[in-house]
Amino acid sequence: MNRITLSPRIRKTPYFKSIVAAGLTDISVYNKMVMPTSYGDLQAEYRRLIEGVAIWDVSVERQVEIVGPDAHACAQYLTARDLTNMKEGQGKYVAMCDHEGRILNDPVLMKLSGDRYWFSLADNDMLLWCRAIAAEKGFDVTVHEPDVSPLAVQGPKAEDLIAELFGEDVRALKYFWFVETELDGIPLVLCRSGWSKQGGFELFLQDGSRGDELYGKVMVAGEKYEIGPGAPNHVERVESGLLSWGGDTTPDSNPLEAGMARYVDIDCEPDYIGKAALQDVMANGGPERLFVGLTIESDIADSWPLPERTPVRQNGEVVGTMSAVVFSHRLQQTIGLAQVNRTVVEAGESVEVEGPGGRNVATITELPFI
Amino acid sequence: MNRITLSPRIRKTPYFKSIVAAGLTDISVYNKMVMPTSYGDLQAEYRRLIEGVAIWDVSVERQVEIVGPDAHACAQYLTARDLTNMKEGQGKYVAMCDHEGRILNDPVLMKLSGDRYWFSLADNDMLLWCRAIAAEKGFDVTVHEPDVSPLAVQGPKAEDLIAELFGEDVRALKYFWFVETELDGIPLVLCRSGWSKQGGFELFLQDGSRGDELYGKVMVAGEKYEIGPGAPNHVERVESGLLSWGGDTTPDSNPLEAGMARYVDIDCEPDYIGKAALQDVMANGGPERLFVGLTIESDIADSWPLPERTPVRQNGEVVGTMSAVVFSHRLQQTIGLAQVNRTVVEAGESVEVEGPGGRNVATITELPFI
Repeated sequence: MNRITLSPRIRKTPYFKSIVAAGLTDISVYNKMVMPTSYGDLQAEYRRLIEGVAIWDVSVERQVEIVGPDAHACAQYLTARDLTNMKEGQGKYVAMCDHEGRILNDPVLMKLSGDRYWFSLADNDMLLWCRAIAAEKGFDVTVHEPDVSPLAVQGPKAEDLIAELFGEDVRALKYFWFVETELDGIPLVLCRSGWSKQGGFELFLQDGSRGDELYGKVMVAGEKYEIGPGAPNHVERVESGLLSWGGDTTPDSNPLEAGMARYVDIDCEPDYIGKAALQDVMANGGPERLFVGLTIESDIADSWPLPERTPVRQNGEVVGTMSAVVFSHRLQQTIGLAQVNRTVVEAGESVEVEGPGGRNVATITELPFI
Repeated sequence: MNRITLSPRIRKTPYFKSIVAAGLTDISVYNKMVMPTSYGDLQAEYRRLIEGVAIWDVSVERQVEIVGPDAHACAQYLTARDLTNMKEGQGKYVAMCDHEGRILNDPVLMKLSGDRYWFSLADNDMLLWCRAIAAEKGFDVTVHEPDVSPLAVQGPKAEDLIAELFGEDVRALKYFWFVETELDGIPLVLCRSGWSKQGGFELFLQDGSRGDELYGKVMVAGEKYEIGPGAPNHVERVESGLLSWGGDTTPDSNPLEAGMARYVDIDCEPDYIGKAALQDVMANGGPERLFVGLTIESDIADSWPLPERTPVRQNGEVVGTMSAVVFSHRLQQTIGLAQVNRTVVEAGESVEVEGPGGRNVATITELPFI
């Protein structure tokens, strides 16, 4: 029952022909769009990311563009982080909250100019949220989804490859900073970013009709680096402690429970949605849960199937939920991600999770693992 | 590449064990949840729906509940239809629009009481939209997703089966009307509804922990009617001209272009979001496109693969988009659904679509086909 029915309701990406030709075997659906998840050899995809360079179609990372005279005020109101000193060409990892302080998304916010911002989004329809807020609040902005589909180039050899394609200047680009540029006339925004900790860039293609052309150019230039296809890598992202919004979070999580405390300016002077709720959380002693790593005792040197979040227990009582378990090739250790009650985390006690062979003892650790 | 990666980001349904046991083979993702699409024999599933009775897990049809003193005012503001005379226990098929008149969703709105409404939704995160509007507009309501997961019983024998389970009174229930009831203590809302034109009911289970129990009870009672598993049926829905929001519509469609004109009260006295925009559309001569059927000349007696919307042409010029093509078993005819420019529809001229064997001539027809 793992066969998926494709239909016009699920969008294809501008790189679709290329990824099928590259041997795509597994997909998911993300932002109502096809998300490649594997090309049939997860081990090779992992090694390529850790040791070489991989090309990922991450078109599912949709943008919501806020443009117009009130763009800054609108972006700020939507964001639980102080944007006062943000520069053009800068990106920031931010939390978007609702009025109750629940985290709705964890995008990278990119400032293209003083009156033009992109939220580069995780998996939900933030276009709805942003449009509703902008219209009801009366901001003088247009909110829309531009024709922008990121292609990620990730891994330790990514910088050499990108420098070859775009020039040596790219080496000076700081993390989450970007430039508007082009490749043989293909318009794109080049950003030092990507959902891994192995370094790399994302090419925000700005013309969906030229996806396969861009993909081809990167593949040709990448040949000497043995570039190959891949996708956001489940094992690497757990090792790196990267949050999967909607997977690691529950619908009622606030950003402080999602490991985003350091990216949130709770008392930020310009008002933002959720400010009072997050201030209340802090006034009441802090978040109930924390996002942590689990080091798990297990004899199984493989990722466990985990199609759903499962309970984390202590003396039989549920004290959290686990959202991912993988066998880390680099650590030679089974590790997981979980939201666990803060009192349990602070006491430093061990917990239990259910594994394929029964109960497994787990130790709570800080993130990232590596 | 039709294999899907399941993860905690994609929710399972409360009937998950039952549908896997029933032989689920194909799924889609809808409202970020597993949507069963086939149990391996589409022909048998079609016949069961047309001639007998089928059980469908349609948990993906999520509810947004609006509850509180301003629930009516909030629901009205969110809905392009006059709710003034709506009764408790009544449902209505409605369009929800944004401020530009674009259709965001086509739910059945259910009035549970004067201060409690459910939007029973198609595929997008309307919880975000409703929460943003309610909070910014200052409505005194709570907006949340209740623990409600519909199970549909569809087909000509559905009424006999439901009468056996819930009593003869259900036969008097009008279309989209419902009652709050229970089955052996399992709380649910029973509604005469479902995404087919073959008649039937939806059981809005109100306790997600009892899904398999409810499924089992319906299956046991349905044995003598030869009930079997199924899913919203692509062929039947095209024959019946039922709209698939997000599949048949484009992001900029208004409800008048989605075949919903008769369900929209454009000049409705109580204000609703999108009113001015829809009034503008009418003041400017009406919608640009119409949702129509296509009768297609084809030698292929099978549904065409149509993973994406494809162009409808006339003399080489694009005049619309086709979103579904099936071979109708009952009509012995290839038929499709499309949005086509109104001028072309009104002129009654034939058009062309691209089929597996090249260009095919198509005649525009009214919906439904049957």
